[in-house]
Amino acid sequence: MQYRFAGRMHCAPPSFLGKLFAVSTDPRIISFAGGLPSSAFIDVDGLADASRRVFEEEGREALQYATTDGYLPLREFISRRYRQRLGLDIPPGEIQVVNGSQQCLDLVAKIFLDRGDPVAMERPGYLGAIEAFSLYEPVFHDVAFEADGPDIDEFRRVVREFSPKFFYGIPNSQNPSGQTYSYEKRKAVAEVLEGSDTVFYEDDAFGELFFDGRPRKPVKALASDCCILSGSFSKVIAPGMRIGWICAPGEVLAQFNCAKQAADLHSNFLCQKVLSRYLGTHDLDAHVRRISAAYGQNCRLMCDLLDDLFPPGMSHTEPEGGMFLLATLPKGLDSMTVFEEGLKEGVAVLPGIPFYVSGGGKSTIRLNFSSMDGERIREGMDRLSRVVRTLL
Amino acid sequence: MQYRFAGRMHCAPPSFLGKLFAVSTDPRIISFAGGLPSSAFIDVDGLADASRRVFEEEGREALQYATTDGYLPLREFISRRYRQRLGLDIPPGEIQVVNGSQQCLDLVAKIFLDRGDPVAMERPGYLGAIEAFSLYEPVFHDVAFEADGPDIDEFRRVVREFSPKFFYGIPNSQNPSGQTYSYEKRKAVAEVLEGSDTVFYEDDAFGELFFDGRPRKPVKALASDCCILSGSFSKVIAPGMRIGWICAPGEVLAQFNCAKQAADLHSNFLCQKVLSRYLGTHDLDAHVRRISAAYGQNCRLMCDLLDDLFPPGMSHTEPEGGMFLLATLPKGLDSMTVFEEGLKEGVAVLPGIPFYVSGGGKSTIRLNFSSMDGERIREGMDRLSRVVRTLL
Repeated sequence: MQYRFAGRMHCAPPSFLGKLFAVSTDPRIISFAGGLPSSAFIDVDGLADASRRVFEEEGREALQYATTDGYLPLREFISRRYRQRLGLDIPPGEIQVVNGSQQCLDLVAKIFLDRGDPVAMERPGYLGAIEAFSLYEPVFHDVAFEADGPDIDEFRRVVREFSPKFFYGIPNSQNPSGQTYSYEKRKAVAEVLEGSDTVFYEDDAFGELFFDGRPRKPVKALASDCCILSGSFSKVIAPGMRIGWICAPGEVLAQFNCAKQAADLHSNFLCQKVLSRYLGTHDLDAHVRRISAAYGQNCRLMCDLLDDLFPPGMSHTEPEGGMFLLATLPKGLDSMTVFEEGLKEGVAVLPGIPFYVSGGGKSTIRLNFSSMDGERIREGMDRLSRVVRTLL
Repeated sequence: MQYRFAGRMHCAPPSFLGKLFAVSTDPRIISFAGGLPSSAFIDVDGLADASRRVFEEEGREALQYATTDGYLPLREFISRRYRQRLGLDIPPGEIQVVNGSQQCLDLVAKIFLDRGDPVAMERPGYLGAIEAFSLYEPVFHDVAFEADGPDIDEFRRVVREFSPKFFYGIPNSQNPSGQTYSYEKRKAVAEVLEGSDTVFYEDDAFGELFFDGRPRKPVKALASDCCILSGSFSKVIAPGMRIGWICAPGEVLAQFNCAKQAADLHSNFLCQKVLSRYLGTHDLDAHVRRISAAYGQNCRLMCDLLDDLFPPGMSHTEPEGGMFLLATLPKGLDSMTVFEEGLKEGVAVLPGIPFYVSGGGKSTIRLNFSSMDGERIREGMDRLSRVVRTLL
């Protein structure tokens, strides 16, 4: 049979995410390519205990259908945490639970983008977002990402000239660069947005993971009604539960809710209840401090090894948080070649290429420092440095 | 701020599902309007035990990111069950796990439908499907649903004249009518499809729930490569876990996988493992027999009450399985009026209206018989009969 697929399926970029997961499960390969948080920091016993109590005390309800917006006590927790941690006033009614924040990427695109609509994002920008948005066949406008956030002149020009439906950005420990917007850039972004018709889609997957433990003010705090803010428990609690959330003004959330209901009725209710119980009896701040400290050490180690083991011309970003850094290869080296030769040597990196909507990334590789310990990082960087030296 | 939503959002029909859930949680109202399976048949202790073992033996893995296609042992179970129960040979590689079969509705529409594309479905047809498909802005062609399946002449004409991308149907205990395709109609549907460019999207949410315990052969067994078949654990195990699946030929599943990855990376991995453990140690056949027998009794009771308590002119379908029947009101009565007056009397029904893509349903109401016991059914039907008599 000749299947007649929708035109949007031809817009899907060749996916790296799936292939990379396969690589990341091969024990012979040290993978800096994936985006897994450290398994060591998943509190299996704590979650097991919360799960046991949910089954005992409210199992029948937890296993039944539930409302689309999500479990209210969990949304109340998220609301309280925004107030306590960031001084941000987001009522539970402006929060909706989703299947990990990846689902926000799909549904925000769904409610805003007609085919051919303009959408803006950082260059380089998160490949998961590029994959999700592409299926709605938009026209991408990318804005250079500098060490302290987007190039504001370029951002202003893109907003004025193309009036994108939304600008997607990651102010905290951006993916793939690992870099963070300065406060000045946050203010400048908010100023450009004010009075425009462009929504800022602020993806905050990594905001809890600053190595210095100091929270950064979200753009949403500076321009609330033109901001959609998404968050996730995947990086700080457990990705396998697929629980994230979105915060949006009521009018936007109503559309989002409609799209979410059509997409899958509601998110896993059992895990929403387990997570809510867990958060009610555990000190998330202390947990996050432990994770951030470990990731900070790993990041420092990786930066030092990049400086010490590699030939001149290799450079890298200096993240303040998150799980990734971006390294630039010495002149003449191609990221796909390093990727392929790396696999032969037992080390996986992620070429910068899929982070670009209009070409680029041939000289950069994204390196993950969250998923393994110092010894594996040392061994992997040693392998990678040999690959780079051999290719030069 | 003036938000500029996508055109598709204007295509969303006013949603009944969300409002109905709210009604269904009000204890003063006896609701025949929702679609909840009986909470009494959720094996909370069995699932608690499976969950405990997953946490103990493989908690760290279950809580980490996983592959998009779904947990292999669970897909192997689904494959084995198709072979044992239906003689259907579907390898695990042609099965993908989703967040309840509602997600199939969204993703099948996503991979097949460009704006304005023709899509066919039963008249009346499942409102959750109408909601999901509408967001892809197709042109609907509906085919009359008769007591034994679709009107084959009309189906043939629609396929020939409009060449729909797919025909969506529920051969087993159709939603909303509760009626089941005869074997002759299944063969006729398969014959029309053969040689056409139309895919059959066979939604089998209720196939396990025949009151006589006798499985019916899916259309997929008669026309494999033009069929997509979806299934769900929501009706037989627990809806709150949001675990369903889709079976499709490899070429279709590759596109589906791409769309699923962009939508939310993967389904809740913890619950996939819990479910897989549970199914490995429990007798699903015996469990399904108990549920089906109870639903069959409830259905018989409801049919008898419709015959005994209501004035002449009230008629109803005679389901062989599933969770719903469709009643036709006496001449002159309007389903929305019965809905609204019913709420005042403490009984909720679902008007037929949202099951039609081109008008209809003003004289029918869908009644759920799975979610409550005989006593509540008696009390609810008593209230409903008073509403109908008063209105006449």
